Amino acid sequence: MTPVIDGLQYANWSERIFRQMRAGGVDAVHVTITYHENFRETVLNIEAWNRWFEQFPDLIFQGFTADDITLAQQTGRTAIFFGAQNPSCIEDDIGLVEVLHRLGLRFMQLTYNNQSLLATGCYEDGDTGLTRMGREVVAEMNRVGLVVDMSHSGERSTLEAIAHSTRPIAITHANPHDWHAALRNKSDRVLRALSDSGGMLGFSLYPHHLHGGGACTLAKFCDMIARAADSYGIANLGIGSDLCQDQPDSIVEWMRRGRWTKSIDYGEGSAAAPGFPPMPNWFETNADFPNIASGLKASGFNDADVAALMGGNWARFFADSFGPTT
Amino acid sequence: MTPVIDGLQYANWSERIFRQMRAGGVDAVHVTITYHENFRETVLNIEAWNRWFEQFPDLIFQGFTADDITLAQQTGRTAIFFGAQNPSCIEDDIGLVEVLHRLGLRFMQLTYNNQSLLATGCYEDGDTGLTRMGREVVAEMNRVGLVVDMSHSGERSTLEAIAHSTRPIAITHANPHDWHAALRNKSDRVLRALSDSGGMLGFSLYPHHLHGGGACTLAKFCDMIARAADSYGIANLGIGSDLCQDQPDSIVEWMRRGRWTKSIDYGEGSAAAPGFPPMPNWFETNADFPNIASGLKASGFNDADVAALMGGNWARFFADSFGPTT
Repeated sequence: MTPVIDGLQYANWSERIFRQMRAGGVDAVHVTITYHENFRETVLNIEAWNRWFEQFPDLIFQGFTADDITLAQQTGRTAIFFGAQNPSCIEDDIGLVEVLHRLGLRFMQLTYNNQSLLATGCYEDGDTGLTRMGREVVAEMNRVGLVVDMSHSGERSTLEAIAHSTRPIAITHANPHDWHAALRNKSDRVLRALSDSGGMLGFSLYPHHLHGGGACTLAKFCDMIARAADSYGIANLGIGSDLCQDQPDSIVEWMRRGRWTKSIDYGEGSAAAPGFPPMPNWFETNADFPNIASGLKASGFNDADVAALMGGNWARFFADSFGPTT
Repeated sequence: MTPVIDGLQYANWSERIFRQMRAGGVDAVHVTITYHENFRETVLNIEAWNRWFEQFPDLIFQGFTADDITLAQQTGRTAIFFGAQNPSCIEDDIGLVEVLHRLGLRFMQLTYNNQSLLATGCYEDGDTGLTRMGREVVAEMNRVGLVVDMSHSGERSTLEAIAHSTRPIAITHANPHDWHAALRNKSDRVLRALSDSGGMLGFSLYPHHLHGGGACTLAKFCDMIARAADSYGIANLGIGSDLCQDQPDSIVEWMRRGRWTKSIDYGEGSAAAPGFPPMPNWFETNADFPNIASGLKASGFNDADVAALMGGNWARFFADSFGPTT
């Protein structure tokens, strides 16, 4: 049985959400554990996850390798894989790449919208590509098996990361820019370089990334996937829902503003709609994953392709990506 | 072939020392990675070890489970197991117990000479036993598989740790007080409670713990072990050399003074001999481990007992101690 895997979530975690993962048949989730937090603060977030793992051992456990996806399927639980949406967690210290990998970090974005020590974010005016430290950190991430995630990075930085990385990278949560022209969605050039190098794209359900926003229909979402499969091949595509379920608006403020500004930054929102946008009514919780599978089937994908898109491709990518370079 | 294991070292690590480990046939070493360092500083020390593991992969690798002792034997390398001589590394945060265990910490002393948040050190005037936090942390260490080490703790605290811990504890580096009356050596009462509970004692070669100091002969050292084996049984005895090879005297100052005093503290030394004391001439480096085995044989132990003392007992203890409670 092919597993169901979500390539990114950042929910306000609770027993309810973990039960919805089980209800939706979700075998593995890449969860964001840190944005602007420094190393010690990130470890505090890991400690919070450790308490959830201790409290809900029948629902969730921490995933370290692709074998844990199989373990999840065998034991009826969801494997939780950690990721960072910004490199603040490694501070200015390349040695923390291996330390965080040992603690289970499996994805790290080189930037979150802004310039970082490593690369340029997608909201900066200019993009100077990978920095000196960025090239070193990508090599170290390659060595230990920490996936480079460029979801929130600029065009040039993303292309350079794809070129410089010796292992396939990921854009865990974004959609094609030519379907919906959001700053966070990715150009054909990026998506072609990504898929040509074996890198994965996770299709996002975050309303700002959807054509028509939260009103986007399941059929339109699946049609976008079908067109991407035609353009880039189906092997490197999956879901990265970007589900931010049950989060208060103060969290999207933290995501956007961190500690880098004293002003308001609306990110993908606006003064008129500063908070989390409402999700499409066919994808509001983890329990709705079967809706996506149904939609893909209705849009013409055969069973094998639906299984690949719903998690088979991510499972292969996890297996290839999370161990040290051999 | 029974492995050779040292229950504690804190050397000024170098390729030379790693090669001496190989020359001495040492399959596994519990190394001290931190004294008074806080969590972030301890992680920096782990990063330094990661660089050594990367630099000398043919000599050493990090040990996590007892299986790594076997791997060391099969590949002709030494497995390095991390330990802390003080709980500064967990700061005031019980959640760091599991985090540090994930990073490979396998032993932690509840105190280093002084009162800590957890228990009383062996140099304090009074000993109030395990603190409230101390009892919680011991339970958490039991849960994850982090060994309680009471080498530098007071008598009452040690007895309470033995009683409170649901798993056998260790005194990784000390000798019987009735052989040499140093503050750091352990009473018959402690050693009896320790061995009755399945806890391990590692015999120390640090001169301040030896009858006659650095002039102690190999025969006298082995005779002490023979008497301890008569008193407590041989099954829970091993070596914990406390080898501090190549360390400058500034390090023993750091060990003794940390950041808790602005005055000089001579610890086990004195104003007349403030630095590291000279080691016995029959044990100056890891290459000298075969001398101890020869001495034990000469003192009347049979081959099986020598093998048990040189590492077999530690190997069994590692296998029983480093995993989570089942």
